[in-house]
Amino acid sequence: MKKISVLGSTGSIGTNTLEIVGRMADEFTVVGLAAGSNTPLLHEQVRRFCPKIVSLKTQADAAKLRSDLGRLPVHVVHGREGAEEVARFEENDIVVAAITGIEGLGPTVAAIESGVRVALANKETMVVAGAILQSRAASSGAEIIPVDSEHSGIFQCLAKARKEDVRRAILTASGGPFFRTPLAEIKGKTVEEALAHPSWKMGRKVTVDSATLINKGLELIEARWLFSLEPSQLDILVHPQSIVHSLVEMRDGSTIAQLSVTDMRIPIQYALTYPERRNSGLQPLDLGRVGSLEFFEVDEKRYPLIVFAKRALETGKSLPVALNAANEVAVEAFLRRRIGFSDISVVVGEVLEGHRVSEASTLETIFEVDRETRDQTESLIKRRD
Amino acid sequence: MKKISVLGSTGSIGTNTLEIVGRMADEFTVVGLAAGSNTPLLHEQVRRFCPKIVSLKTQADAAKLRSDLGRLPVHVVHGREGAEEVARFEENDIVVAAITGIEGLGPTVAAIESGVRVALANKETMVVAGAILQSRAASSGAEIIPVDSEHSGIFQCLAKARKEDVRRAILTASGGPFFRTPLAEIKGKTVEEALAHPSWKMGRKVTVDSATLINKGLELIEARWLFSLEPSQLDILVHPQSIVHSLVEMRDGSTIAQLSVTDMRIPIQYALTYPERRNSGLQPLDLGRVGSLEFFEVDEKRYPLIVFAKRALETGKSLPVALNAANEVAVEAFLRRRIGFSDISVVVGEVLEGHRVSEASTLETIFEVDRETRDQTESLIKRRD
Repeated sequence: MKKISVLGSTGSIGTNTLEIVGRMADEFTVVGLAAGSNTPLLHEQVRRFCPKIVSLKTQADAAKLRSDLGRLPVHVVHGREGAEEVARFEENDIVVAAITGIEGLGPTVAAIESGVRVALANKETMVVAGAILQSRAASSGAEIIPVDSEHSGIFQCLAKARKEDVRRAILTASGGPFFRTPLAEIKGKTVEEALAHPSWKMGRKVTVDSATLINKGLELIEARWLFSLEPSQLDILVHPQSIVHSLVEMRDGSTIAQLSVTDMRIPIQYALTYPERRNSGLQPLDLGRVGSLEFFEVDEKRYPLIVFAKRALETGKSLPVALNAANEVAVEAFLRRRIGFSDISVVVGEVLEGHRVSEASTLETIFEVDRETRDQTESLIKRRD
Repeated sequence: MKKISVLGSTGSIGTNTLEIVGRMADEFTVVGLAAGSNTPLLHEQVRRFCPKIVSLKTQADAAKLRSDLGRLPVHVVHGREGAEEVARFEENDIVVAAITGIEGLGPTVAAIESGVRVALANKETMVVAGAILQSRAASSGAEIIPVDSEHSGIFQCLAKARKEDVRRAILTASGGPFFRTPLAEIKGKTVEEALAHPSWKMGRKVTVDSATLINKGLELIEARWLFSLEPSQLDILVHPQSIVHSLVEMRDGSTIAQLSVTDMRIPIQYALTYPERRNSGLQPLDLGRVGSLEFFEVDEKRYPLIVFAKRALETGKSLPVALNAANEVAVEAFLRRRIGFSDISVVVGEVLEGHRVSEASTLETIFEVDRETRDQTESLIKRRD
């Protein structure tokens, strides 16, 4: 029986993870949950899975949960320290790290330092602190298994291939809702239009990131650290059907690809059961019915953020931190209708122009660059208001 | 330094193998060659690679080669026994089994019995004697690595996956030159039209087999034995671009595919270097340029032979032997313009209707079923003349 803690249990990855774990109750048991402020859902999860430790964002929510649970033997904690306590819980065999954004960094590092298997669904963590995470995993013996569908795909394609046999890894991007929109019309696209993703059902932030393609840019940076690849070994192809998630090109000219229907439960389950697989009960891929898989080079005019992402991939250091922070603030401003869709890349570009690259080799300096960049981006947006 | 013998050295797979081995002279050396009657090319190969043992089809050719080689220390043999001697040569580390047709059976079995790595390019061998080959490989410890692009693809996709995790293996077929031809027009297709294969450059027999799709049917049977899969776990998709060679569907809903440009040197080299890979110097696959990959269910009206192949796959025993023999004779008759293109499936169908399934559990009975079926097919064609 494998013991699992889920960080970010009330989010999309978290609830999918618990659905899988509930279905495989003979193999997995939940020992810890960490959530934000969706306390009703967390209550439900606690009653269903009976974890030993639970963390909420605020002290007030934690106190309320503690009193609601009555005599149930659950240790309730709160805040970033609480989430880190769940991440470090001594009974953990697997930690699913699914707190989104920079908030997930501390708990993810805590899980990695405890040397368990970390099913990593928090993109930003690897983007802003890839080198640190890689070295801590090397010290602790933690096994990082990616949950992002593209990275899970690369992980599956690699299948323990020797590093020297791998030439390139290619991540696919759906191209988002504006892939076929005339360039001149993109500028005026509304929040509703940006949220109408053609193939994946995801959160609002990620869906906008998918429309600008910055999500794929961040994934390039994530892949660099997850698989110890050089920036030149990573590339993106637009693939509107989102069936092929990634491809690994070997040096002999053979390419291995991973395909599936668009359902996050596949990579989540794989991260839990690896190196084995289990029936998922999901509809298998029917390529005869899909008919056609299309692939396109990335048009940097359509997706200007990709240029910044590639620069951040190559430069490293504090630049990915600044890119991630500026993008988060700009997307939030777009979602609040303070700026237009095309302004996202304009704002991010201006912020990065002004960014002075520093080492960012500790968690503290990373948090500092993150905060500074957010402030700068916010000021810039205010000046534009 | 790995020592290689090539059975069928003057054929398409054989010459490609020697080209690869010539390029990787620091890793591989040729110790044995077996050819048919292309003595000029064999002479050239002997002078270039200096093998220790060489076999030709006839005693006369062998005597001539022996005298031409003067004092060169090459042991020259001939006939089926000669090819088997090369296959069993004690210095072999790898035997490339690339003698086509049922003629390759004896030498391939000899290689497998000697317990070395066998790079298997002879489809028919596995089709007619899969169970025997499998059990002899288990006894001798021989490692059979497929060279057929589709089977190499499956082998690469499996990458040591556990048997219970594999749901299905799907081989792709180009669909041949008549994939988009109106059904009513196929009947009148000429030899020249049947030989105009859209994506692969291959021998005449295989090209016609590709137009009728029977090559894929035989490959299903081959895959059944190579990978110990049940008939129900094997399927075909038509994929006109011939970029994806095969796909393996895992039980969790994830599918792994192998892709490459259409060049036999990739699977041949992989069979030699496995589990490692080497640079091939070949153009990498450029999916952005390919643009679109299409997949279609197999239309059994267009490819009636596939129905017989599936029956042979399920029934096993002597039926695959009869299918292979009847098809070889019928294709030869088509190439000699004795029968029309659509007659191939009519003739094969009639022969199989009359076939009484027997065990065919020894090489002797297999050869017997093969001979009998050829005679029956020939008589049937004569009656139609």
